[in-house]
Amino acid sequence: MANFGHGGDAKELSRKNKLEYNKIIDFSANINPLGMPASVKEAIIDGLKEVEKYPDITYFELKSAISEFENIDKESIILGNGAAEVLFNIVRGLNPQNALILAPTFSEYEEATRAVSGNVIYYNLKEENKFKIQDDILEYINRELDVLFICNPNNPTGVITPKELLIRILMKAKENDVITIIDESFLDFIEEDVSMISYVNEYNNLIIIKSLTKFFALPGLRIGYGISGNSKLKREIEKITPAWNINTLAEIAAKIGIKDKKYITESIKYVIKEKEYLYNELKKNSELKLYEPSVNFILIKTCKNINLKEELLKRNILIRSCSNYERLNKNYYRIAVRTHEENVILIEEIRRIFEEL
Amino acid sequence: MANFGHGGDAKELSRKNKLEYNKIIDFSANINPLGMPASVKEAIIDGLKEVEKYPDITYFELKSAISEFENIDKESIILGNGAAEVLFNIVRGLNPQNALILAPTFSEYEEATRAVSGNVIYYNLKEENKFKIQDDILEYINRELDVLFICNPNNPTGVITPKELLIRILMKAKENDVITIIDESFLDFIEEDVSMISYVNEYNNLIIIKSLTKFFALPGLRIGYGISGNSKLKREIEKITPAWNINTLAEIAAKIGIKDKKYITESIKYVIKEKEYLYNELKKNSELKLYEPSVNFILIKTCKNINLKEELLKRNILIRSCSNYERLNKNYYRIAVRTHEENVILIEEIRRIFEEL
Repeated sequence: MANFGHGGDAKELSRKNKLEYNKIIDFSANINPLGMPASVKEAIIDGLKEVEKYPDITYFELKSAISEFENIDKESIILGNGAAEVLFNIVRGLNPQNALILAPTFSEYEEATRAVSGNVIYYNLKEENKFKIQDDILEYINRELDVLFICNPNNPTGVITPKELLIRILMKAKENDVITIIDESFLDFIEEDVSMISYVNEYNNLIIIKSLTKFFALPGLRIGYGISGNSKLKREIEKITPAWNINTLAEIAAKIGIKDKKYITESIKYVIKEKEYLYNELKKNSELKLYEPSVNFILIKTCKNINLKEELLKRNILIRSCSNYERLNKNYYRIAVRTHEENVILIEEIRRIFEEL
Repeated sequence: MANFGHGGDAKELSRKNKLEYNKIIDFSANINPLGMPASVKEAIIDGLKEVEKYPDITYFELKSAISEFENIDKESIILGNGAAEVLFNIVRGLNPQNALILAPTFSEYEEATRAVSGNVIYYNLKEENKFKIQDDILEYINRELDVLFICNPNNPTGVITPKELLIRILMKAKENDVITIIDESFLDFIEEDVSMISYVNEYNNLIIIKSLTKFFALPGLRIGYGISGNSKLKREIEKITPAWNINTLAEIAAKIGIKDKKYITESIKYVIKEKEYLYNELKKNSELKLYEPSVNFILIKTCKNINLKEELLKRNILIRSCSNYERLNKNYYRIAVRTHEENVILIEEIRRIFEEL
């Protein structure tokens, strides 16, 4: 991949900065702070011998489990080696000339579009609108456009686009033969029903992307999926996808994880509580501007001219600089919600850094 | 993927044929019969917690380990989620109009070419030549051709193409701007030096593909790589590859496995011995024609009109039918070398099947 810069690069950073990798508290990757479910860990150890065989090339059991979890048709699932591969394969299958992408948003939509030499049009999210998509997005949807990406909630702003507006976008997109890709990779972290999954059969131009690795804390295992009712697109994607793209342990982990109702309920509860705590505590710092979070990460802005990432890294804490996001700059940072103990440390270290200025 | 049919589909078959999956002895996938190294198993269990973090996006340690293992420059490595992804990404990067492919050979070269709408030209391997590539392959290399694939040893025939001929192919290909992809995924199983890896710097048009999952018995974990001195192509491939395409456990397994010299030596010795045993025993059966094997699989042909795969499946043994290979038919089968105990069972069951005819 062309390295556009991502969170979760603790290993690379610790090598470059000669820090002890294992001592770094990583607030830069938006991963469930509870860690992977114990049930998943057990299942992986029990199933280790299975890696000596090829994965089931049809992924029958995995697709059945996801179909039940999402309450969707098994045939509408597009599996991928992480949501990143799902996205790249969808974009390869669509091969768009023109793509509408939010600014700022997760960089992989642009990477995937540029990988097929597609042209990127930005829909600029404005700070004065609290980075919310406005009705004027509809004016960007026309016959020249091939695909539009909406990250919901948006990464890194945390803004949720309401269903009502999404439906109007979908309708206008349908009229203009525009594929609408909604990335719901963080939606499992909240209880509100803002998912558009139930609309995939009604809107042939709708594709949902989901990652399982954030909620189930398995980013190293790589598993994600797309959901679409568009069978022509699905055939195209099948044609271009290498065999056995989901590894066996990711398959086992996903099958077990999505059935672990207790872990799911506890994680949602924990993250909501810690998100509120972290938000309220950081808000007390007058040097910081906070944007209201929705899921497991918070966008902040420093008022003073300070490299907060560098300062925190000296204290073995890693946060995500948002300087390489379109429309953001070096004053913006994204902070993941971690465990209570870790959040306490972060709050305290940030307080000290500004005190010492 | 468009399912061209592969070995190693025990799970799908057992579901369809209502067989007990765990009771099937799988001779259809060419996997090291010793199973994964104990050192790898341990390292995976110890490293399980690592899946809660993103893989190192630069794969620094993994590339360093492979660079040492293959005695090549770190910069020449193209990592993939299995050799299948390496292949698909290389072909995407090349985007060939015309590809020369052996017939018969591993089906993924054709799949990858068709995925980018490339045209396939077959170089027919003839039974009267024992399926060996002849000098006339040079006549197929011209300015119209973009890429040619050689599987060495060839799957499913087991034929090794000598270095001397490969060099003549490479030279003619270089003159005509043709990329030559040599798949050496099975070469670790033998001691003879037939690898072309040391030529990647001399020949800019040479790309080697290797799978680690066959020799180290990790097909479920997915790890493979390409080796090339062509930096333009590598940049192109980087651009089209999704981030974090190698999962953390595959990374750990590869790093540890390739350093396990004892396992490597023992595996080679064991497979050579069992290959000889299986070959010599099956040769005693006058109803079978055997093709001389080189690595860990044997191509056979039945003289009688019998569905050997079906007959063996009734006895919980799975072999690979070669009916869907170009130039082969339902009389051909590929048999992997398994453990001595399993090989004994196979030999005995085949003997019985022909006895009962």
